[in-house]
Amino acid sequence: MSKAILLISCPDRKGLVAKVSNFLYTNNGNIENADQHIDAQTNTFFMRIEWALKGFKIPKEKISGEFAKIAHVFDMRFSIHYSSDVPRMAVFTSRFTHCLYDLLLRYREGQFNCVVPLIVSNHPDAKSIAKSFDIPFFQLPVAKKTKKSIERKELALLKKEKIDCIALARYTQIFSESFVKVFENRMINIHHSFLPAFIGSNPYKQAYLRGVKIIGASSHYVTKELDAGPIIEQDTVRISHRDSVADLRRKGEDLEKIVLSRAVRLHLSRKVLVYNNKTVVFE
Amino acid sequence: MSKAILLISCPDRKGLVAKVSNFLYTNNGNIENADQHIDAQTNTFFMRIEWALKGFKIPKEKISGEFAKIAHVFDMRFSIHYSSDVPRMAVFTSRFTHCLYDLLLRYREGQFNCVVPLIVSNHPDAKSIAKSFDIPFFQLPVAKKTKKSIERKELALLKKEKIDCIALARYTQIFSESFVKVFENRMINIHHSFLPAFIGSNPYKQAYLRGVKIIGASSHYVTKELDAGPIIEQDTVRISHRDSVADLRRKGEDLEKIVLSRAVRLHLSRKVLVYNNKTVVFE
Amino acid sequence: MSKAILLISCPDRKGLVAKVSNFLYTNNGNIENADQHIDAQTNTFFMRIEWALKGFKIPKEKISGEFAKIAHVFDMRFSIHYSSDVPRMAVFTSRFTHCLYDLLLRYREGQFNCVVPLIVSNHPDAKSIAKSFDIPFFQLPVAKKTKKSIERKELALLKKEKIDCIALARYTQIFSESFVKVFENRMINIHHSFLPAFIGSNPYKQAYLRGVKIIGASSHYVTKELDAGPIIEQDTVRISHRDSVADLRRKGEDLEKIVLSRAVRLHLSRKVLVYNNKTVVFE
Amino acid sequence: MSKAILLISCPDRKGLVAKVSNFLYTNNGNIENADQHIDAQTNTFFMRIEWALKGFKIPKEKISGEFAKIAHVFDMRFSIHYSSDVPRMAVFTSRFTHCLYDLLLRYREGQFNCVVPLIVSNHPDAKSIAKSFDIPFFQLPVAKKTKKSIERKELALLKKEKIDCIALARYTQIFSESFVKVFENRMINIHHSFLPAFIGSNPYKQAYLRGVKIIGASSHYVTKELDAGPIIEQDTVRISHRDSVADLRRKGEDLEKIVLSRAVRLHLSRKVLVYNNKTVVFE
Repeated sequence: MSKAILLISCPDRKGLVAKVSNFLYTNNGNIENADQHIDAQTNTFFMRIEWALKGFKIPKEKISGEFAKIAHVFDMRFSIHYSSDVPRMAVFTSRFTHCLYDLLLRYREGQFNCVVPLIVSNHPDAKSIAKSFDIPFFQLPVAKKTKKSIERKELALLKKEKIDCIALARYTQIFSESFVKVFENRMINIHHSFLPAFIGSNPYKQAYLRGVKIIGASSHYVTKELDAGPIIEQDTVRISHRDSVADLRRKGEDLEKIVLSRAVRLHLSRKVLVYNNKTVVFE
Repeated sequence: MSKAILLISCPDRKGLVAKVSNFLYTNNGNIENADQHIDAQTNTFFMRIEWALKGFKIPKEKISGEFAKIAHVFDMRFSIHYSSDVPRMAVFTSRFTHCLYDLLLRYREGQFNCVVPLIVSNHPDAKSIAKSFDIPFFQLPVAKKTKKSIERKELALLKKEKIDCIALARYTQIFSESFVKVFENRMINIHHSFLPAFIGSNPYKQAYLRGVKIIGASSHYVTKELDAGPIIEQDTVRISHRDSVADLRRKGEDLEKIVLSRAVRLHLSRKVLVYNNKTVVFE
Repeated sequence: MSKAILLISCPDRKGLVAKVSNFLYTNNGNIENADQHIDAQTNTFFMRIEWALKGFKIPKEKISGEFAKIAHVFDMRFSIHYSSDVPRMAVFTSRFTHCLYDLLLRYREGQFNCVVPLIVSNHPDAKSIAKSFDIPFFQLPVAKKTKKSIERKELALLKKEKIDCIALARYTQIFSESFVKVFENRMINIHHSFLPAFIGSNPYKQAYLRGVKIIGASSHYVTKELDAGPIIEQDTVRISHRDSVADLRRKGEDLEKIVLSRAVRLHLSRKVLVYNNKTVVFE
Repeated sequence: MSKAILLISCPDRKGLVAKVSNFLYTNNGNIENADQHIDAQTNTFFMRIEWALKGFKIPKEKISGEFAKIAHVFDMRFSIHYSSDVPRMAVFTSRFTHCLYDLLLRYREGQFNCVVPLIVSNHPDAKSIAKSFDIPFFQLPVAKKTKKSIERKELALLKKEKIDCIALARYTQIFSESFVKVFENRMINIHHSFLPAFIGSNPYKQAYLRGVKIIGASSHYVTKELDAGPIIEQDTVRISHRDSVADLRRKGEDLEKIVLSRAVRLHLSRKVLVYNNKTVVFE
């Protein structure tokens, strides 16, 4: 069944819900899901509304134009997504392949509403996995000197494949500010700590040395500042003095897989809105 | 600030949200919170909508009558609650007073939107606690023979004090079907297990004997069937072979307090709707 | 580094620890790990002790005989395991392959101290997975009529391959009492509910209908009574009224994988002792 | 029943367990609990052993001297504690009294093996609570100028009352290095964040602004560096974009109470050993 999803954010005002729901009702739209949130601090209104296109009076290609008239009145930022336009997601990875494997298995099981046309890595480790899932693999090693030119290659590749979003499945390279800008709020990273604790490299070692009793994993949109983007999802697991750094890694990897896959799923389902470097997640 | 909360459940149909939001908008209502849910299995629509009464064109005493016209068209069951009508909650308890204490401390801190005009117990243990919180205490011991007459007394007392809902803070007596009927979906119990496991008496002992690795607590509306009513909230905590029944009790009591207080808070905030012996909880 | 692990259970008495640790010390054993537990209810002593074999004065093949002299005095049940004797684990599965996949990926990553010489299934679904991991696959469909003869085949196969333990990765057939007896405390099942709630088939549907707010998964040794064996590990995850049965399945499968793999890992590390249909787990 | 608890830490060597358990066995001691841990990184051995004094051949006042002979040989740091010597714990608090209340209720219920001879606060808020629990209350307001002299008063008070340890139940003053030194590894703080995230003041506001999806609480021994001491216990709870700072505070306070009480209980049960600014917790 073909569906449309409308995402809105704007200053809160009387009549917002009435206006939007009337727009759907008068055009014979059947709402299947609706969520809203008012951020009291900034007086911002957020809405996600999902309706069946069957019988909807406005043809798909004109919906956005028609809705823009309402949006204009209310100073809305909005986007409309159609279930028939399946997002195209690239996966970047490096040496650790557990997150890649996990994403691909869920992808094959149909948990993600997307197509994965390519996998990129700066290392060769994931090549055979990509092959076993029949997904083109591009090994693009990054060095300080080649970084700029590699990013250009990557961007060309992503453009050619019409990539909508990127999942960083334990990809270890830091992107340039200009690359990040292109995929703003569309590039999802997994950091293997309970952010904002243990930013940067080797967070399990950091956690071990600090002697915490719980470790975590955090999935966030990438911004120019390292591990500081809007957090989409986090989870934690209990550890003890008996756990070595290797035990932390093993326990943490289970979190990483689950947290990244949840974030990817929420993003692909258009359930995440970003504002003020934070997320509204309509679960 | 005076607010109204409207709770709706009805068969799902096109135009429901538009109709309700128009009702508010055309009467100059400012929506401060709205949540909805469609149960796909039964095609049932649920809504909770909260708006500021300031400037609302319909006077408070006429809102229900006006809305009934819409409700009639859509076969809605609905209720309207006003923040100015503070619910009156009775607390029943027995020998274990940790949940009672916890509720009263939260009540004093202002966590609950209610008035507690009385505490009832079949034991004397809570008397001094009630006194220290300046709440009238009624000791009504129940025996097989006296059960009927005691329940009559209780009902008279609750009626006299205009009690809206009852929190059972580890109250050990089982109510008659007729008593339960009077407080249908308004009497909240805490059961010290992860329901539906370990129904009935001494669930910590049952859990210990079964050798589970996690224990729980469950808060639910009381129905005529023991520990089988609609679940409002649950939580769990990890245990190990090192934990005795006494350890389970100690760990479990922390859960009981938190789970009961969450359920009471959700109920008093009018965030719980019941259908099919289940709950929709608009958190 | 070659190690030995000694597991003991016996009535508690003075001098147990001294006797065991002296046995190791006087034979030049270096303890690397030791755990003990006294079950106060039954006055039973449990111990797990791990030591390096390098420099140990008693040759490996005589250790058990020597220790038996002590064991006799204290009425001990004991077993000694050597890191050089890698356990051989069979995996049984049916149609749902997520647990199988998860086990095999961890196996390949070296998380399990075992060899997996064969995979058995009553369905063909796992065949290609087995092949991609280079593990022999045996499809043995079970019907009421053929059950006895199939179990005989299975037992012959397991005997031939010297199988020490079996992981049931969502295997849907119920074994006969005699089969269970052969693999007592060596056959690990994953049940997709928070036992003892929702025993039997379709626990996600059961959980959905009951309206619980948390679901779980439980790993246990198989006994003749369905889903009633000693629980090794459990975990839970929060759900809400928004989750359909399919959502419960998706969320639950993440639990199943983690809980089964933890139980398998604990078993293979000789960290689980069984008594009174419960487990002592030395994590 | 009178018991002794022996805590040991020393470089790991062969024969440690044998030596200690022989000491107990030859003196007719019945071990009721024993836990040990080897930190592989630093090759350090930790042990906690608990035995019944009834029938023990060495009189209580001579045990320490006798054991010192063994300790000397193995370079052990050790301490022996007797269940008959009930620890004396002071509680310090400020304006927020939920942790104080929680500790006192558990204290009255018998959850803590201690005596609380006094409550100290820099504010008057807890006065009536102290009175209702019949515990002497000392209001000692701290200002920059008076800090030194107040700390002298506090130390005198604590000395006079023979205080063994201090629970800081949301006490907001920072102690001087010399004060901290006196109560090294004996002063337990609760910090209302998941350390090391959100050190310092107003962690709930910090968490809100960062947009985390989970908040936490951490209990640790106080060291001269703010919120950087050895962590004893932590716990976390899920939040969402719907939660205001006030909601974070409410949810977090439940964690604070539980985490602080667990840490206090573990400390009083002599189950915590400190090394390298980390803890070994023998639960």
